[in-house]
Amino acid sequence: MKFLIINGVNLNMTGMREKGVYGSQTLEQINAEISAYAQANGDSVDFYQSNIEGEICGKIQSCFNANYDGIVLNAGAYTHYSYAIHDAIRCITTPVVEVHMSNVHAREEFRHTSVIAPACKGVVAGFGKNSYVLAIEGLKR
Amino acid sequence: MKFLIINGVNLNMTGMREKGVYGSQTLEQINAEISAYAQANGDSVDFYQSNIEGEICGKIQSCFNANYDGIVLNAGAYTHYSYAIHDAIRCITTPVVEVHMSNVHAREEFRHTSVIAPACKGVVAGFGKNSYVLAIEGLKR
Amino acid sequence: MKFLIINGVNLNMTGMREKGVYGSQTLEQINAEISAYAQANGDSVDFYQSNIEGEICGKIQSCFNANYDGIVLNAGAYTHYSYAIHDAIRCITTPVVEVHMSNVHAREEFRHTSVIAPACKGVVAGFGKNSYVLAIEGLKR
Amino acid sequence: MKFLIINGVNLNMTGMREKGVYGSQTLEQINAEISAYAQANGDSVDFYQSNIEGEICGKIQSCFNANYDGIVLNAGAYTHYSYAIHDAIRCITTPVVEVHMSNVHAREEFRHTSVIAPACKGVVAGFGKNSYVLAIEGLKR
Amino acid sequence: MKFLIINGVNLNMTGMREKGVYGSQTLEQINAEISAYAQANGDSVDFYQSNIEGEICGKIQSCFNANYDGIVLNAGAYTHYSYAIHDAIRCITTPVVEVHMSNVHAREEFRHTSVIAPACKGVVAGFGKNSYVLAIEGLKR
Amino acid sequence: MKFLIINGVNLNMTGMREKGVYGSQTLEQINAEISAYAQANGDSVDFYQSNIEGEICGKIQSCFNANYDGIVLNAGAYTHYSYAIHDAIRCITTPVVEVHMSNVHAREEFRHTSVIAPACKGVVAGFGKNSYVLAIEGLKR
Amino acid sequence: MKFLIINGVNLNMTGMREKGVYGSQTLEQINAEISAYAQANGDSVDFYQSNIEGEICGKIQSCFNANYDGIVLNAGAYTHYSYAIHDAIRCITTPVVEVHMSNVHAREEFRHTSVIAPACKGVVAGFGKNSYVLAIEGLKR
Amino acid sequence: MKFLIINGVNLNMTGMREKGVYGSQTLEQINAEISAYAQANGDSVDFYQSNIEGEICGKIQSCFNANYDGIVLNAGAYTHYSYAIHDAIRCITTPVVEVHMSNVHAREEFRHTSVIAPACKGVVAGFGKNSYVLAIEGLKR
Amino acid sequence: MKFLIINGVNLNMTGMREKGVYGSQTLEQINAEISAYAQANGDSVDFYQSNIEGEICGKIQSCFNANYDGIVLNAGAYTHYSYAIHDAIRCITTPVVEVHMSNVHAREEFRHTSVIAPACKGVVAGFGKNSYVLAIEGLKR
Amino acid sequence: MKFLIINGVNLNMTGMREKGVYGSQTLEQINAEISAYAQANGDSVDFYQSNIEGEICGKIQSCFNANYDGIVLNAGAYTHYSYAIHDAIRCITTPVVEVHMSNVHAREEFRHTSVIAPACKGVVAGFGKNSYVLAIEGLKR
Amino acid sequence: MKFLIINGVNLNMTGMREKGVYGSQTLEQINAEISAYAQANGDSVDFYQSNIEGEICGKIQSCFNANYDGIVLNAGAYTHYSYAIHDAIRCITTPVVEVHMSNVHAREEFRHTSVIAPACKGVVAGFGKNSYVLAIEGLKR
Amino acid sequence: MKFLIINGVNLNMTGMREKGVYGSQTLEQINAEISAYAQANGDSVDFYQSNIEGEICGKIQSCFNANYDGIVLNAGAYTHYSYAIHDAIRCITTPVVEVHMSNVHAREEFRHTSVIAPACKGVVAGFGKNSYVLAIEGLKR
Repeated sequence: MKFLIINGVNLNMTGMREKGVYGSQTLEQINAEISAYAQANGDSVDFYQSNIEGEICGKIQSCFNANYDGIVLNAGAYTHYSYAIHDAIRCITTPVVEVHMSNVHAREEFRHTSVIAPACKGVVAGFGKNSYVLAIEGLKR
Repeated sequence: MKFLIINGVNLNMTGMREKGVYGSQTLEQINAEISAYAQANGDSVDFYQSNIEGEICGKIQSCFNANYDGIVLNAGAYTHYSYAIHDAIRCITTPVVEVHMSNVHAREEFRHTSVIAPACKGVVAGFGKNSYVLAIEGLKR
Repeated sequence: MKFLIINGVNLNMTGMREKGVYGSQTLEQINAEISAYAQANGDSVDFYQSNIEGEICGKIQSCFNANYDGIVLNAGAYTHYSYAIHDAIRCITTPVVEVHMSNVHAREEFRHTSVIAPACKGVVAGFGKNSYVLAIEGLKR
Repeated sequence: MKFLIINGVNLNMTGMREKGVYGSQTLEQINAEISAYAQANGDSVDFYQSNIEGEICGKIQSCFNANYDGIVLNAGAYTHYSYAIHDAIRCITTPVVEVHMSNVHAREEFRHTSVIAPACKGVVAGFGKNSYVLAIEGLKR
Repeated sequence: MKFLIINGVNLNMTGMREKGVYGSQTLEQINAEISAYAQANGDSVDFYQSNIEGEICGKIQSCFNANYDGIVLNAGAYTHYSYAIHDAIRCITTPVVEVHMSNVHAREEFRHTSVIAPACKGVVAGFGKNSYVLAIEGLKR
Repeated sequence: MKFLIINGVNLNMTGMREKGVYGSQTLEQINAEISAYAQANGDSVDFYQSNIEGEICGKIQSCFNANYDGIVLNAGAYTHYSYAIHDAIRCITTPVVEVHMSNVHAREEFRHTSVIAPACKGVVAGFGKNSYVLAIEGLKR
Repeated sequence: MKFLIINGVNLNMTGMREKGVYGSQTLEQINAEISAYAQANGDSVDFYQSNIEGEICGKIQSCFNANYDGIVLNAGAYTHYSYAIHDAIRCITTPVVEVHMSNVHAREEFRHTSVIAPACKGVVAGFGKNSYVLAIEGLKR
Repeated sequence: MKFLIINGVNLNMTGMREKGVYGSQTLEQINAEISAYAQANGDSVDFYQSNIEGEICGKIQSCFNANYDGIVLNAGAYTHYSYAIHDAIRCITTPVVEVHMSNVHAREEFRHTSVIAPACKGVVAGFGKNSYVLAIEGLKR
Repeated sequence: MKFLIINGVNLNMTGMREKGVYGSQTLEQINAEISAYAQANGDSVDFYQSNIEGEICGKIQSCFNANYDGIVLNAGAYTHYSYAIHDAIRCITTPVVEVHMSNVHAREEFRHTSVIAPACKGVVAGFGKNSYVLAIEGLKR
Repeated sequence: MKFLIINGVNLNMTGMREKGVYGSQTLEQINAEISAYAQANGDSVDFYQSNIEGEICGKIQSCFNANYDGIVLNAGAYTHYSYAIHDAIRCITTPVVEVHMSNVHAREEFRHTSVIAPACKGVVAGFGKNSYVLAIEGLKR
Repeated sequence: MKFLIINGVNLNMTGMREKGVYGSQTLEQINAEISAYAQANGDSVDFYQSNIEGEICGKIQSCFNANYDGIVLNAGAYTHYSYAIHDAIRCITTPVVEVHMSNVHAREEFRHTSVIAPACKGVVAGFGKNSYVLAIEGLKR
Repeated sequence: MKFLIINGVNLNMTGMREKGVYGSQTLEQINAEISAYAQANGDSVDFYQSNIEGEICGKIQSCFNANYDGIVLNAGAYTHYSYAIHDAIRCITTPVVEVHMSNVHAREEFRHTSVIAPACKGVVAGFGKNSYVLAIEGLKR
């Protein structure tokens, strides 16, 4: 099976920013681990990262004709107000799983609301880098 | 007279996404029809589409020195939270009409509020592709 | 085709009240122009005005058995709280378009919400007397 | 000088309904006292009562061409939600004073908000039948 | 015993409007059934219907001197915002029961609030035409 | 026909607690009257009372395989916040009627909202012990 | 009869501040006019002004043993949040009338709410300096 | 490793209730699959179900001295208002993962808020019975 | 005199849970101290603890016929949403004092609201185990 | 030990104002009783009262260098909105206990919120004059 | 040029209170530094501090006839609810700059709203004692 | 010292848009003045402008390894809803000052809230182009 992992705004800073929250591995290192895990199971994973809301929408749209079996989306702060990404997910039929490395519900009030989740298949939050792997597992089953 | 039609986020997916809501014609086909209609009336229409909020703002700003008689703007989901686009419209004197293909008031709660409309001349919603044509007619009169 | 234009509360004062907002033509003059426009296109238009919420409901109900191709409704201030009119529109199958001469979204907060729009086919606002004509055009297409 | 006193919904029941709140004089008796008071001061007063929101709007509109020096309006429960009456007051230039016999602020929560007051010249509440007389005095000065 | 059944706005369309919600019997047919039921129990029932909020208030007021043992009131959409009807009920001592044919709590958000209920003796909702009969039974006991 | 009457928290105190609101008959006496009424009509009624939210859910669930023709549920204070009971009602297909002895809408603000009603067939409130009988009647028709 | 007029915060600036709203007469000039008016009617008026919320409370408290027939209170901005003044009014039995020179309901949102009015006998607003005179008249009747 | 799976209110009805949402496997069947999966990985899983909020709290408390490596908690409707369960989780140091079989964010408004999540390590929702397995996987990593 | 101390949900974990907030004495140790204190003053105290909301209601109800001079109630998290306990307190005439060991107002937002306090005689919070003793003292005076 | 009791706005009216709520003893009489109680226990108490928010802040500030073992503060109506007093308490390290003679939670809505409590050690409410004594006891333990 | 620096409630405690937030310099030391800075630039600065809201209003009013080129106002906690100070600023034409030593937006929720700022020329927050100097610089330019 | 000034959406239109609010100097002219001012003080300033939210985030992120002593950020309309920019600021340790040329608190309601300020060191607003200079001064001290 084939998956796409989309990381949104500020996730390119993983490993540098607030390490107490996000850990000290860089996004590249995390991606490499995920890729290795997938390959070990006979799956392949593509990665995309952008800080720009509209580019994230565009990437999601582009899956309309792509043959991904699922998308794992960590939209970062856009999670909490981007109805544009909500609508982009509605444009396609590929299942999308919303993930967060931290448990957003235990942080600031504004992170408790996701405007994207209603358009998704499911949500995984709080397992650090493993949130991505669990989302892939969820999509596979 | 000369008009600019700006389509915002996800509208490039028209004809593919949720056909029950947006119809099955692509944006290109709709634009072609609008263009033909305008030409038949001796008007010309330019088209612009972007998924990126800031690019939409930039396009609106660029009309500061352009000679458009009006702008027809379907900002997509940005309609509901983009104060940036609101302010971009305030930057220029060209009249802007907010349009929607669907009747946004009959859909989810979040689509009932437009933060852009207070900066516009008027609003047209619910007539499918004809919303664009009606907006042009409204600007002409 | 045959249309009914319903004007609600205080619209009989058009041409006298707040001319900066509503212009200086009377409702009769506006209706005459609309009628002429329709006839030129082979259509006919009936007009109805009432200040009384329940009478407006009754008029809408009466279209249950009438052969109108569409209703253009400017409910005036009732737009913002009349669930009765909302329900009256739900009683019939004739498509109804909500219109406003002014851009209600650029005025007081209470005018930003329409409880009627969810029961309508579409909305046209901000084009002065032309809002009615655009609504007819929208219904025809 | 010449004044018009408009009583809205349920005020025709004055003297019968909740006497602890509204007293035991009927509206006719109160009107007679107001009339006598006005005549003693060389003024004249007309009276109007209706339970129907739209008729109250119509009566207010009719003052557009009448020569009243002021209107005293007790809209009853419509005070709290009738944007239609708000707009009717905006249609004319005759000053309107909102009155209440009871102190509405000391009663149920819903009576604490007036959607009519922003369109009025002033407000008088809590003086029983004398609220009308005070409003006339306020308009005269 | 003697009862008055008041039907408010749009209920004259029963049997024609949204049959999935309100059934396909007309109001006249329903009233006839209620009347037959009452007569079988030695009671009599009068019926009143109006789309006009102020007329409904007037009818309720008129019971001040009438000898009804109770009023069954289906105010339709006015249920949700008519403080005028709330106050009219407060004007009289005859007990009033609020009824709805549908279960309003299972429909749109705006139908979940009744501003009339606090002035009533009780509420019956969700039993179709039988809601009226149950209300009469409740008043009788 | 066969019915189940479920009384929730504090209803076992009926006849002892706030007699002005709930009367001075005990729940046993009320149940006996209801039972007699039902038998006179050839119906039978079972009774259940618990103060424990989860036990009430369990009792409702148990009707999944029981042959009741309807459930009459007075959940007491749980009415206003027990989404658990809401969901329990959704688990079964037996129709449930929410009842209250008092008119909850004329009491404290928190009693105006029912989170259970959207899952029920209907609501009866304000008729004292007769609310139960009316609910049974409503279920029978 | 004997009255006390209490002016609260910033009213000592009357005649200097925002003349479009409050006029160009100073508080002393207005007080002199009120005094003359009262004397002409055989009444006497005392005046008090303070910018300090607690001193205003103290002055109101001091009327517990004073022989005023009524208090006219313009609390200025404290009107909108001083529960302390609300409670001070509750400490005494002398009737208090809340007054405002401007129509507070036609100004900023925060001026639409009075936390003092529920403790008062009545309210007069919008008649400039005459608001004080009308309040005295209201207390006399 | 050793895990405890706690299922809350109404989850004992899984396989019977709303099959479109929860599937047609019973809780016992699901538990058996989870157990098999765990054993295959050398782990063991205990199961607990209760409809009673306080019993769920008690079970969570009992893990204070138990040697579980993690708890997987599907609190059902209690998720949305049980601060008691929130506090129970705070009583212990064993990590708890909140799970839901359905994507609660795509359902009714009241299901979008979790008062339990802030006390948990993470959240998994939307993967049907696999949500439990993913949570175990998340706890293991 | 004779008192009953009721401890609600999670208070059985006192001494084990969050020691920074609740101290390191167990509930048994605290109860023993309270008992000794009471006996020294010639009073006696009974103790009850339950995690189950409905059982707490039942215990409160049982005081209807018991001869307690007062109840000290620490409902734990139920304080913030249990209208059931509110109603249970309303069922009896024995005075109830709400207590908390911590100062709930200095903790999370949800702990700032008590739905139980309006039915109580008073509240004591913030004195650790001494909150219970102070409440007893308050009931004695 | 040495304590300071601060009474805020309108508490100097105790014994005169609303005796049903506050009793008929004057503040001086209550203070004398508290003083006698303290002396009997070998403690001393100072008293301060002011209607002026800023003076109360000043008195609290003055404890920065005073040797009080605790402050008992009844801020009266300021409790509900004085962030100034909140901040004054934060200025010092002496523990402050918020007290109320009445059970504020059983009175008007606005009295249910304390903006001062989050800065205090604890709260005592509802025990009349004994609330002060209990607070002292709480500070001593 | 000549400036007035007004410090409001609790700012006299600067250097003693919460040093982590406000630093350890006293207000006198800070004022001395500001004065020295101003003199070095050929300007002069007057200082005023009061804990009393009404006195702060009075000081602001007194600038009506004073020759200050600007006022720097740190109203302390009054910033968040004193419409009285808002109105006092509106009384004069001297420009006022709101300052805070801490970044109020990064602290408690209640500090995020300023009711004073809409009446000011500008705002400076977060630079410790330098906030005052920056405000003077801003007024000078 | 070295500073970076970031201007967000629509600020490239400065000098052209709403001159009454933003003045008639272009952003280039303002930048030139700031640069001259800085050089005169031995500092250097870099400038960046983008309409695109994600690019602004990227620029802020890029300061993670840059040697700026501070960032001055005017995010334009993004100030009011861009949690993405909030998070970007949290990614770096360079202090950021939020600036606005206009006094945003005296404009539309939506401009009163900044979601960015909690992540900043401080805020400067209302001094036109000088807001930038004051922010630099604030960062230097």
